[in-house]
Amino acid sequence: MECHKAPEGAKGSIKHYKQNISVLVSPKVCGSCHNVEKEQFTKSHHAKAAKILGSLDNVLAEVVEGKASMALNGASPAAVSGCWQCHGSEVKVLPNGDLDPATWPNTGIGRMNPDGSVGACSACHLRHEFAVEQVRQPETCGKCHLGPDHPQKEIYEESKHGINYAANKHKMNLASPKWIPGEDYDAAPTCATCHMSATRTLPITHDIGDRISWTLRPAISEKIDAKDLKDGKNVKHWEDRRADMQSVCQSCHAKPMIANFYTQFDSLVEMYNDKFAKPGAALMKALRADKLITDVEFDEKIEWTWYLLWHHEGRRARHGAAMNGPDYTHWHGTFEVAERFYTKMVPEYLEILDKAEKAGKKEAVERAKAVLDEILKRPEHVWFTGNESPEVKAARKKAIEEFSKRYSN
Amino acid sequence: MECHKAPEGAKGSIKHYKQNISVLVSPKVCGSCHNVEKEQFTKSHHAKAAKILGSLDNVLAEVVEGKASMALNGASPAAVSGCWQCHGSEVKVLPNGDLDPATWPNTGIGRMNPDGSVGACSACHLRHEFAVEQVRQPETCGKCHLGPDHPQKEIYEESKHGINYAANKHKMNLASPKWIPGEDYDAAPTCATCHMSATRTLPITHDIGDRISWTLRPAISEKIDAKDLKDGKNVKHWEDRRADMQSVCQSCHAKPMIANFYTQFDSLVEMYNDKFAKPGAALMKALRADKLITDVEFDEKIEWTWYLLWHHEGRRARHGAAMNGPDYTHWHGTFEVAERFYTKMVPEYLEILDKAEKAGKKEAVERAKAVLDEILKRPEHVWFTGNESPEVKAARKKAIEEFSKRYSN
Amino acid sequence: MECHKAPEGAKGSIKHYKQNISVLVSPKVCGSCHNVEKEQFTKSHHAKAAKILGSLDNVLAEVVEGKASMALNGASPAAVSGCWQCHGSEVKVLPNGDLDPATWPNTGIGRMNPDGSVGACSACHLRHEFAVEQVRQPETCGKCHLGPDHPQKEIYEESKHGINYAANKHKMNLASPKWIPGEDYDAAPTCATCHMSATRTLPITHDIGDRISWTLRPAISEKIDAKDLKDGKNVKHWEDRRADMQSVCQSCHAKPMIANFYTQFDSLVEMYNDKFAKPGAALMKALRADKLITDVEFDEKIEWTWYLLWHHEGRRARHGAAMNGPDYTHWHGTFEVAERFYTKMVPEYLEILDKAEKAGKKEAVERAKAVLDEILKRPEHVWFTGNESPEVKAARKKAIEEFSKRYSN
Repeated sequence: MECHKAPEGAKGSIKHYKQNISVLVSPKVCGSCHNVEKEQFTKSHHAKAAKILGSLDNVLAEVVEGKASMALNGASPAAVSGCWQCHGSEVKVLPNGDLDPATWPNTGIGRMNPDGSVGACSACHLRHEFAVEQVRQPETCGKCHLGPDHPQKEIYEESKHGINYAANKHKMNLASPKWIPGEDYDAAPTCATCHMSATRTLPITHDIGDRISWTLRPAISEKIDAKDLKDGKNVKHWEDRRADMQSVCQSCHAKPMIANFYTQFDSLVEMYNDKFAKPGAALMKALRADKLITDVEFDEKIEWTWYLLWHHEGRRARHGAAMNGPDYTHWHGTFEVAERFYTKMVPEYLEILDKAEKAGKKEAVERAKAVLDEILKRPEHVWFTGNESPEVKAARKKAIEEFSKRYSN
Repeated sequence: MECHKAPEGAKGSIKHYKQNISVLVSPKVCGSCHNVEKEQFTKSHHAKAAKILGSLDNVLAEVVEGKASMALNGASPAAVSGCWQCHGSEVKVLPNGDLDPATWPNTGIGRMNPDGSVGACSACHLRHEFAVEQVRQPETCGKCHLGPDHPQKEIYEESKHGINYAANKHKMNLASPKWIPGEDYDAAPTCATCHMSATRTLPITHDIGDRISWTLRPAISEKIDAKDLKDGKNVKHWEDRRADMQSVCQSCHAKPMIANFYTQFDSLVEMYNDKFAKPGAALMKALRADKLITDVEFDEKIEWTWYLLWHHEGRRARHGAAMNGPDYTHWHGTFEVAERFYTKMVPEYLEILDKAEKAGKKEAVERAKAVLDEILKRPEHVWFTGNESPEVKAARKKAIEEFSKRYSN
Repeated sequence: MECHKAPEGAKGSIKHYKQNISVLVSPKVCGSCHNVEKEQFTKSHHAKAAKILGSLDNVLAEVVEGKASMALNGASPAAVSGCWQCHGSEVKVLPNGDLDPATWPNTGIGRMNPDGSVGACSACHLRHEFAVEQVRQPETCGKCHLGPDHPQKEIYEESKHGINYAANKHKMNLASPKWIPGEDYDAAPTCATCHMSATRTLPITHDIGDRISWTLRPAISEKIDAKDLKDGKNVKHWEDRRADMQSVCQSCHAKPMIANFYTQFDSLVEMYNDKFAKPGAALMKALRADKLITDVEFDEKIEWTWYLLWHHEGRRARHGAAMNGPDYTHWHGTFEVAERFYTKMVPEYLEILDKAEKAGKKEAVERAKAVLDEILKRPEHVWFTGNESPEVKAARKKAIEEFSKRYSN
């Protein structure tokens, strides 16, 4: 049991059949044999997953949903059994040498280990098999990448990639050491194929963002290197990442299809950004600027509305388009984004202005109203107020008639 | 590569290793060998799936969620990456001979191809295996038939059919050429078994509605031939379709069970129709008749409410009952239908009347109020206003007491 | 066909190829060979599943969603195709000897059979294979244990247990007669492993609650023996049940991990109880006590709100923590519980008070307001009214800063 070996008396170690062992095997240990993988992982976005613990985002699990003092050792159970199980905890050793139950068991991908290393290889490489065929299967990524805010597993399963995988798993040669698409298998890719595994032209990588060109995480999407470039960091350019991903696509698809697919994907992301995300952010900014809502996060309904719009529904639309899951793009995505924007966000905004007006904040209300009015006058929103021009209506009617004529049988 | 062969200079064709090929292989090509299948498909409801492009339904993706001019070539990205990926696009060839990225890649089942044919065989028969064992698996249908508005895949997986399939997939003989239930397999049916595949008495069909007796798609369900009969068309009668489906059931089940099952299914559909769908439609009609809501679709909350009631939740209830998924029938179905009707639709209706009354539309309000009042006085709704008769309450109480007595241990 | 044999003329029996058979095979029949299993089942909570038919809970399917007289024979289709398919029906034989279609087909686990026995072995042991490898698979339990109100199947699939099962199903030795974890398989447990199957130290059981320590079903969770102990019944103590479950865990995990896991689980349940469930129940009680809402269930929005909070979202949080599905614990769980409590329950409560005040019920409103005020002043809710003390805010700010310093790279 080389990997578990711990010096006598080391913190967090226990006696196990006469040997002193560490119950926690950190990337530092794994890296003593697998250093390349450990280094790639350590500079990846995955390794930063637990940074959420110190961010304001954390207010949800710590304050709104739970309360730190309601559980053992000052942690909120909503964070312990929720957020941290994916993001990772800051593992603490109690004075008696035991691991703090608020922080362990935990195999969150960004776990902060007592030995100073970051990550948990066992987040994906499940004990004790550590089988390469297990970690290449989509269920592995589905430990975290599923659900209302990032349903990558569900989108994959709906996509033709996932359908072909389900039908042909037994032909996927999943235990092959090199596992090159086009050589070892050609039925379908899994998550690993596109984001991590080697191809005829690319090496394997444990830096999960290496082939990703957009970040679909924030309220408003930007190219994945945008923030780092702004911060003056020297990182792989998004075009190089995209070129690498497209080279993966070429293991099975021809270039015109790949190019057209990316045009469709980019268009959806930009449409979401321009029609809903930037306007939504502008509305929230207008309310905050004039103190029409409080500084406290999530105490007003519109804060939940906006959060659900971008963090849940807006992401689903973008992820759906990224991975070809039309049900997620549309019904779980843009359909719900539009419903929330028009039937919740706008009315709640107007209600806030109404109350503020009654409270005598006339100028603030005027400023905020102007922001909304400008948005709703844009061509993509003008239908909502019934102010589409007769020309636009006529053009749409004509297009429908011509379509009907072409396909009248 | 016979199937991809294209004449020199044909629109949409590209050079591929010195050959001129069409990247798009249409049913016209497939039909040159598989003409029976192509003909069955071409007259099916599946083949009409892209007709949605020219319908008013299209307003959602084109206008509400997106905007045509926000993407390439005048299409709305919400349609391109959403609706059209299942329904099919109208594939266009650009002046330079390339396929318009707004319209391709696309394998929607009702795709309108440049050669005038309709459909995409590769919607189900995934390239390049074209394996019969792939297309018989439920994941294939789950490319489109899943999600909030028609969760057939999820319902199947929950049903005993799906449970038995999951446990016995390896015994299903999925690659058998004839694949007759009761001969080649008996563990469970898949989607294909009941809707398409051959049985001891029925031939295989590519007309997906051939054995379906109800249409569960519209707001108010009717027998599947009702609209065609009304239009004077000569189509297969719903009773013949049902008889065929019941003959599939008989591959495994006895007649009394099948008859009772259909009684349960019909009862659920009729209850949904009578209690919620027809009343909901009547309320919307009353609002429109008196112009208490605008002509613009989806600009008022009640329009979303009604749409979600029938298009999402009401369908889930009906589909759940059709395929024996009680969780979908009840929790995703009638429970949500009832919640939306009583806690959203009725209050929003009253709020509209309230505003109209303040605006002086007294007579319109009276007419609309009468429509609601008549509905809420019906025996199935009278509980809501607290006007159940003492007799009804006493009868229910007595039934509960007697039940308790029978099962008191 | 020994199991189907029925005396000539027995109610519910039919002629089948010259033999008189009963279409319904009840636990009484199964028990003639499998008596131990039948006895364990009969005293289990599973066997009581149809008791819901005579309870007030039944008001949903019988009254709110449906109507008894809308279907055959006085049953509500929403119950027939919904609730009863999982809970079980009271099977009735019609005067002509046929089984009442309102009550059969039905394989709900608590089915009440014409021969007086309770249950349906075929709820899990699917005909006609009755294969032990089928019934040990998680899909079997997913016939009922899935969906918005108790997504055990989805939680399992997300958990590492489910991920390992998906990757290693073929190594699970599912058809082994004894099927002992650690001997016959070690890749992962299924539902059956932990709740029913034999281990090195425990016998197999068909009493599904035998190893469960909490009941996560009601609005406010309590230890699983609490109600029985209160009723003076002599039942297995929750600590003994937990000790048995922990002995199952020890088939694969070390004691410190198990102990810490239970600490995490208990903390989440207690946090949910204390922060949301008990306060929510207190609010509903206050409204009823002063008749600020009617006696009719589900005619007011706040009744749906409270029901969804505990019956759907609150259960998801608790089940998620019980089985290590962080997405369910957090995003489908505590996140939605908090959203519903703060943005729906509290505002709807205040709206009711507002209307009551206008109706002159001053004292009742004061009493109800005091209940809410006391709750919102508690340390775990004080953030919502913006009344967190400067000390608490400062402490949180300091913790974040220190965290950032520790992980600044």
